[in-house]
Amino acid sequence: MKRSNISENVIHRLPRYLRKLEELAAKGEERISSEKLGRQMGLTPSQIRQDFSCFGEFGQQGYGYNIDSLSKEIGRILGTYQDYSAILVGAGNLGSALIKNLDFIIEGYRFLGAFDVKPELIGTDIAGVPVYDYANLADFIRENKVDIAILTVPKSAAQTATDNMVQAGIRAIWNFTNMELELGDSGVMVENIHFSDSLLVLTYHLSAKDEEQK
Amino acid sequence: MKRSNISENVIHRLPRYLRKLEELAAKGEERISSEKLGRQMGLTPSQIRQDFSCFGEFGQQGYGYNIDSLSKEIGRILGTYQDYSAILVGAGNLGSALIKNLDFIIEGYRFLGAFDVKPELIGTDIAGVPVYDYANLADFIRENKVDIAILTVPKSAAQTATDNMVQAGIRAIWNFTNMELELGDSGVMVENIHFSDSLLVLTYHLSAKDEEQK
Repeated sequence: MKRSNISENVIHRLPRYLRKLEELAAKGEERISSEKLGRQMGLTPSQIRQDFSCFGEFGQQGYGYNIDSLSKEIGRILGTYQDYSAILVGAGNLGSALIKNLDFIIEGYRFLGAFDVKPELIGTDIAGVPVYDYANLADFIRENKVDIAILTVPKSAAQTATDNMVQAGIRAIWNFTNMELELGDSGVMVENIHFSDSLLVLTYHLSAKDEEQK
Repeated sequence: MKRSNISENVIHRLPRYLRKLEELAAKGEERISSEKLGRQMGLTPSQIRQDFSCFGEFGQQGYGYNIDSLSKEIGRILGTYQDYSAILVGAGNLGSALIKNLDFIIEGYRFLGAFDVKPELIGTDIAGVPVYDYANLADFIRENKVDIAILTVPKSAAQTATDNMVQAGIRAIWNFTNMELELGDSGVMVENIHFSDSLLVLTYHLSAKDEEQK
């Protein structure tokens, strides 16, 4: 498989496939057809066949996909991340809630610590994760060659923190600040979490339904 | 505009368009071409022209789109939500972080309160939002005809809470539990927030980059 041949849309569907397949496996299912999988996921069968064909031969005409081997392969493709190091920047409400709730962040990466400016937080720990002084962030990134920063600072601090981290050599930012970060030609990768988007979509559907019933 | 003619993909892009257009307006821009907008958003110009044509005539050949009128129209389409009522179910770390961080939830809806099982939380408030006893959730939904529930309970409680709310007549669930909720044929709408998906995508790109450089 050549990764560069895989489209961004397919890559974004991989985590969804993985979750669905693991759910089916947990129910004891062994095979699934592209028709059935498509129905359950709101995708067309041909879309699914096309997506999976990027990664090799998992289906057999008339027999469907082997759930176990397909989910293992997708897990392998997505799961080559255990070697990456991660930190969290901004240990306020949202940052500490993420640490406490999202085990996969702590378990899936070499999670090195959290950073904050507040004196009362520095030196404490959140669910076992040490909180360091934000003033030492850039040095820490340089010395530890940190790969990924989870950005949960207030909006007003988002771009400054980003500039500091980019200069210090961060490679990827998982952005919770709801700000579009400017990264110039640094080559730093960003994935944005925009909570409001999916709530707006939900409300759009509610209001479309109400309109229909008028 | 007939809402039912608009595809799910277009609907999911609307909040992104709105954010981008508002950002451009804040910078003082007045018009933008589909080419330029496409470059900034990672979409093709023809995709953008097709999306916007669902809502009427906003562009003029050779002059680009009027940023102000286009963002107003998208805002209008997405923004017909002020009449909906919302509650939060599960006022733990994540739930209270959402209330404290996401002003648009509190400001954009009739936000009626939060619910939790913990005696030490019940009767308190989080950033002005009252926390009620989870035992009264179903009655509250019925009496107040609540439209939207933000679900931030622990995984183990997610399906039970969902069943209770569906029976009580909730219309939409914004699901932060990372569980696939079973809704049968209730017609209740769900939007799932799966934090891990976008982190996996980010790591996929990191590892693809490393592979290329080997």
